[in-house]
Amino acid sequence: MKLQKFDGYTFVEGGVCAAQGFLANGIQCGLAHKALSEDAPSPTAGKKKHDLAVIYAEVPCAAAAVYTTNKVKGAPILVTREHLKNGTAQAVIVNSVNANTCNPDGVEKATKMCQLAADALKLEESEIIVASTGVIGQVLPIEPIAAAVPELCKGLNPKGNAAAVEAIMTTDTMPKEIAVSFTLGGKPCKLGGMLKGSGMIHPNMATTLTFLTTDADIAPALLQQALSDVVKLTLNRVSVDGDTSTNDMVCVLANGKADNAPIRTANADYDTFKQALYVILLNLARMMARDGEGATKLITCLCEGAPDEKTAEIVAKSVITSSLVKTAMFGRDANWGRIACAAGYAQADFDLEKLDIDVASENGRIAACRKGVIPDFSEEEAARILEPEEIRICIHLNSGLCSAVCWGCDLTYDYVKINGDYRS
Amino acid sequence: MKLQKFDGYTFVEGGVCAAQGFLANGIQCGLAHKALSEDAPSPTAGKKKHDLAVIYAEVPCAAAAVYTTNKVKGAPILVTREHLKNGTAQAVIVNSVNANTCNPDGVEKATKMCQLAADALKLEESEIIVASTGVIGQVLPIEPIAAAVPELCKGLNPKGNAAAVEAIMTTDTMPKEIAVSFTLGGKPCKLGGMLKGSGMIHPNMATTLTFLTTDADIAPALLQQALSDVVKLTLNRVSVDGDTSTNDMVCVLANGKADNAPIRTANADYDTFKQALYVILLNLARMMARDGEGATKLITCLCEGAPDEKTAEIVAKSVITSSLVKTAMFGRDANWGRIACAAGYAQADFDLEKLDIDVASENGRIAACRKGVIPDFSEEEAARILEPEEIRICIHLNSGLCSAVCWGCDLTYDYVKINGDYRS
Repeated sequence: MKLQKFDGYTFVEGGVCAAQGFLANGIQCGLAHKALSEDAPSPTAGKKKHDLAVIYAEVPCAAAAVYTTNKVKGAPILVTREHLKNGTAQAVIVNSVNANTCNPDGVEKATKMCQLAADALKLEESEIIVASTGVIGQVLPIEPIAAAVPELCKGLNPKGNAAAVEAIMTTDTMPKEIAVSFTLGGKPCKLGGMLKGSGMIHPNMATTLTFLTTDADIAPALLQQALSDVVKLTLNRVSVDGDTSTNDMVCVLANGKADNAPIRTANADYDTFKQALYVILLNLARMMARDGEGATKLITCLCEGAPDEKTAEIVAKSVITSSLVKTAMFGRDANWGRIACAAGYAQADFDLEKLDIDVASENGRIAACRKGVIPDFSEEEAARILEPEEIRICIHLNSGLCSAVCWGCDLTYDYVKINGDYRS
Repeated sequence: MKLQKFDGYTFVEGGVCAAQGFLANGIQCGLAHKALSEDAPSPTAGKKKHDLAVIYAEVPCAAAAVYTTNKVKGAPILVTREHLKNGTAQAVIVNSVNANTCNPDGVEKATKMCQLAADALKLEESEIIVASTGVIGQVLPIEPIAAAVPELCKGLNPKGNAAAVEAIMTTDTMPKEIAVSFTLGGKPCKLGGMLKGSGMIHPNMATTLTFLTTDADIAPALLQQALSDVVKLTLNRVSVDGDTSTNDMVCVLANGKADNAPIRTANADYDTFKQALYVILLNLARMMARDGEGATKLITCLCEGAPDEKTAEIVAKSVITSSLVKTAMFGRDANWGRIACAAGYAQADFDLEKLDIDVASENGRIAACRKGVIPDFSEEEAARILEPEEIRICIHLNSGLCSAVCWGCDLTYDYVKINGDYRS
């Protein structure tokens, strides 16, 4: 999958360690009760993967986060929300395998994780962000975490991003991290991040666990505003399976080490920084969709010509969420009627008789609907267009100037396989 | 799957031919371009199935229908809606394989189907209900239909329901028909029906094609009222895959041959008749869910203790629609957290700390959530409960006296198989 590039932003190595002043680490603490099977669709197939990570900033950071809108919220969400009330934080501790959600002692355990990290890092408990991902409704064993945290923190290093990103993976088949460099008032800055997929992913507030770090100097309120705005255009426009997770969180730490003119108003530097956030989260969103559980294809749906952005978003989301569109893409079946059908049941107002649809990929572009009617087409040409790993569905409502893009993936046997027996 | 019984209503044979004065027939006219593969999950595997059916009433009938809410509507829907404006009809013609939707000449072809049936049956074109189901966006070949209609109509007979129900099947693995007898003011009456599933099924107005016939004497407006009310409680509460079809229609013909005191007001006889509709559509809804594409299990979700019925319905629908709940049921995986998660992201207002969930089947009942917390449970007992073909998920919001039931099915490899290559 190719990264989407933007002028003035250069991709660099290092993920959450790319920005100066950030260290990370990840280890196997023993939460995973058994190794993944040899044929699991994962780079850690056949072995026990890392399951505990820490990210540490050398100085206190401005911090912001967005959370799941699910009424059922993981205990770590409740604890982190409290800790971020003052807009600052200095470290993140996160485990996979167990979501610490719907448990009788969830908040107690999430608080304990913060205490453990704070003790090892010589910080206040309230400066720690805590997150968990994995199975819901199983009591989190704190002992392996307690035993591992000292070693985990001792091993913090400026190349620890690779170990950390492995630790947050669940059914992900590839680590997802990215970083960019850019300048703010002539000062070089970096912004990097890591994200986990791959199931229970549906647009609503945050979607997934994502950790971002930057050395830009920006006030917490503006950091929050930029994050909230950009998440709406990126992670909130991804759907893998229509299920909105209980533990979603996207957080960003800004340590100010880039020595840029502090961003305290929504000025041009704010716009530059916000665009960096967009570059990072757009690409992470695409990686997440491409690596959706069992997926073989990234499906991008662009809806143009809408009277307003909301209409465009609703129509595009409806298409990428449709099980029938997703299975057709998996089967490379040019069943254009399913795309029209999914647009038609979207809860949005548009004129069917103006509906145009194209389907495109690196192999070409084909008309799939014109003014609400599906034209004759070459099955051979359609099959060629549906072959590549990335398919674009382009909808034009011919009723205005607004547009939106959403990202999804195909629905495959492996999705059923992965989720028919997820806990064991 | 067991039928759900109700006192005073006796199940009888005959489907759409059960009520006196109705004849039916179905044949293979040649729309199916090839036979189903030998391993297709269908009783017609290895052969070309019937693809054209007619239902005929010996006298004019009161008629009512409900239609899909999808903005993309099949051409037959547009034509039938016109024909039913006067509240009467006398015959139905329906084909499978091709949905006659998103076609440049759809209305013309649907009208032609009515003309053909009217000519053969010596009726007015406006007395014909027309329906189509199958692939969207392929021009309907009218020649095989025109050639077959005379023979089709000549073969109308009082046991033709079996041939007719085969003709409306698409990916259905079993014919779905049912009939009951009951009395209206001492007069024996019958109501019967047939329905097709199995994909592109999601609650919204009608869902699926369903044809009902009765010999009760009831005014068109009351017939419409009863149908609309009962569909909301039955077919609109089924989801197979979240996709609302373009061609959904439920219609009912009432010929008055039972000689009951004509139902002209919403009196006790009206209630008795409406309950018969409920018995029929409830059981057809359950059959449809059980035979959802690729399904191995019927999943019933009852939500009780809601402050209002809408809340109960939204929560129950959210659970049966969740891909992660559906795959867990397929895998017999007691992943109760996914049920709590799906209830949590339902767009309904309830108090999480009062949320109780049980999972039950003929093998027993187990607590899956208490006051928002997932309790310890025996994996062995859970596996035994998840074994049977019908699983009940019982949610209690503990916040009121209202309830609702929804029906769904598991998500399996076969769903992906069936839909990855539906058109070929």
